Amino acid sequence: MDLESELKKRSDFFNVQLEKFLRNGSPDNLYDAARHLPLAGGKRLRPCIAMVTCEAVKGDIIKVIPFSIALELVHNFTLVHDDIMDKSKLRRNIPAVHIKYGEPTAIIAGDLLFAKAFESMHNITTDYSTFKNIEYGLIDCVKEICEGQQLDMEYEKRKIILEDEYIEMIRKKTAIFFQFAAEGGAILGGGSPDESHALNEYGLNLGLGFQIWDDYLDISSDEKTLGKDIGNDIRNGKKTLIAVHCLNKATGDDKKLLEEIFGNRYATEQQVKQVYNLFIKLKSIEYAKNCAINYCEKAKKTLEVIHDSDAKKILFDLAVFAINRRK
Amino acid sequence: MDLESELKKRSDFFNVQLEKFLRNGSPDNLYDAARHLPLAGGKRLRPCIAMVTCEAVKGDIIKVIPFSIALELVHNFTLVHDDIMDKSKLRRNIPAVHIKYGEPTAIIAGDLLFAKAFESMHNITTDYSTFKNIEYGLIDCVKEICEGQQLDMEYEKRKIILEDEYIEMIRKKTAIFFQFAAEGGAILGGGSPDESHALNEYGLNLGLGFQIWDDYLDISSDEKTLGKDIGNDIRNGKKTLIAVHCLNKATGDDKKLLEEIFGNRYATEQQVKQVYNLFIKLKSIEYAKNCAINYCEKAKKTLEVIHDSDAKKILFDLAVFAINRRK
Repeated sequence: MDLESELKKRSDFFNVQLEKFLRNGSPDNLYDAARHLPLAGGKRLRPCIAMVTCEAVKGDIIKVIPFSIALELVHNFTLVHDDIMDKSKLRRNIPAVHIKYGEPTAIIAGDLLFAKAFESMHNITTDYSTFKNIEYGLIDCVKEICEGQQLDMEYEKRKIILEDEYIEMIRKKTAIFFQFAAEGGAILGGGSPDESHALNEYGLNLGLGFQIWDDYLDISSDEKTLGKDIGNDIRNGKKTLIAVHCLNKATGDDKKLLEEIFGNRYATEQQVKQVYNLFIKLKSIEYAKNCAINYCEKAKKTLEVIHDSDAKKILFDLAVFAINRRK
Repeated sequence: MDLESELKKRSDFFNVQLEKFLRNGSPDNLYDAARHLPLAGGKRLRPCIAMVTCEAVKGDIIKVIPFSIALELVHNFTLVHDDIMDKSKLRRNIPAVHIKYGEPTAIIAGDLLFAKAFESMHNITTDYSTFKNIEYGLIDCVKEICEGQQLDMEYEKRKIILEDEYIEMIRKKTAIFFQFAAEGGAILGGGSPDESHALNEYGLNLGLGFQIWDDYLDISSDEKTLGKDIGNDIRNGKKTLIAVHCLNKATGDDKKLLEEIFGNRYATEQQVKQVYNLFIKLKSIEYAKNCAINYCEKAKKTLEVIHDSDAKKILFDLAVFAINRRK
């Protein structure tokens, strides 16, 4: 069984449903802006996770499609608004919504996607209590993502962040989506409370592992050249787990060096290199790498209560893939 | 019975519940930004309408509070985002959210209010089908408001707008809220389908009347001085019902005059005065005034199917007030 083709099979199926759901509306310009990002592809990781956890508890995949669409739309709505806040120009290799349609239309397009996520939730067929449970989960998810995004912005300005604070921030900003996708798929698939709980834990740990591995990749992919991105992250004082670890570990001259350079917009290339060397000396890069591996190990372990199946194998392989990918 | 004190009694009660619902959260800065506008007062017209229509069908007002909170939060979330789009500095005589907290936090605070509106919906106690019906109405409401806001922006750039297009735009942008508040209050109050339908019509007509009367007030309150606002609206080509009527009625030299001056950012005071005189000559101001009166007459007429009560009297008086107020 090949993970990539298994995921592609599901995301292809999902894409057809999403396109159907996001049919045009009026005024054209608003609906085009709203469709711009969700129909521009992407890995569909969240919908796939919900589909596979549904299958893993022997549920019917069709029952989880409206929920998967809601997840993907909430994810996209946050990206549209984040790109405005971060003044990002590109997303998925195409112009960000606010670049193509202007900021006012992008703000409304994001709001519309948010509304349409809840519209999709109404296509779920289940009993009242399950519906409320799942929808409340989505509401909670959005609230936490808002909180996480705000924390991320505030942490950029703070000198030091504790590791626990960082983990809580990425839990809110990123991992909660994986967690809720995995649990929601299990609940709508008719999984037992034990199964749903285990898959919730699976999603949380997978999400944390994914995000921290991204931090690790960002800095290690470019190791020899110390390219623009790494330099910018150091100059902007971006709080990745690597930076957080290093800031908390450094003492004496190392600490002084960090205080002088990390977050200094005018740092020279040589200074950036000094900080990078400190990341290596204090084993911060290695620490982050191991951290990601540990979270994915935990994710695999949570699967023990799930009956063996192809779907379970996919979930397992996803946790292996998360910490073996090079991009 | 005094309308003002009857509304105040209800909005005071509502404010206590809203404040309780919008208790603090973390990070502080985000929750302060989210609470900034909704707790800064306002007429609470939408919540009051929902409460009074609930009473008018002999419902228990408590049952409609979570719905009223949701309405008010959606209203506020759209204001927070609109102020960013319009670059407005003040709202309710205090700095707009993006002025006080910065644009990124204001965007997230709006999103958070949106999520919290749906959170409040979950506090409604009713059966599954009514819940879905009401919540779907709220989703639809948000979608229409997004569409209306987009149309409003697009219409500013268009030379001519038909009256039907204008009415449809303010229906989406403003009146739908009154409509949904009135209908939702009736449904949650246990009103019959006939009553709910009548109150839906009541809200729609009242909302249209209110908005058009605002257009009328904006231009007539300042009649003698032709103050800054009127001048700016003419220079910006703002499509009020008055302007829409005039643009559609004008022929020959009048039409040429409008084409030259209306929407011309560099129009002189004398030119502005010429357009204003055209509004009078073509009876556009009078037309808008009568239009508002007609909508409010219709609103009053829809109340005929509702049993007599103090609540019905409040709804009636509100339709009278809408077209007799001076601000």
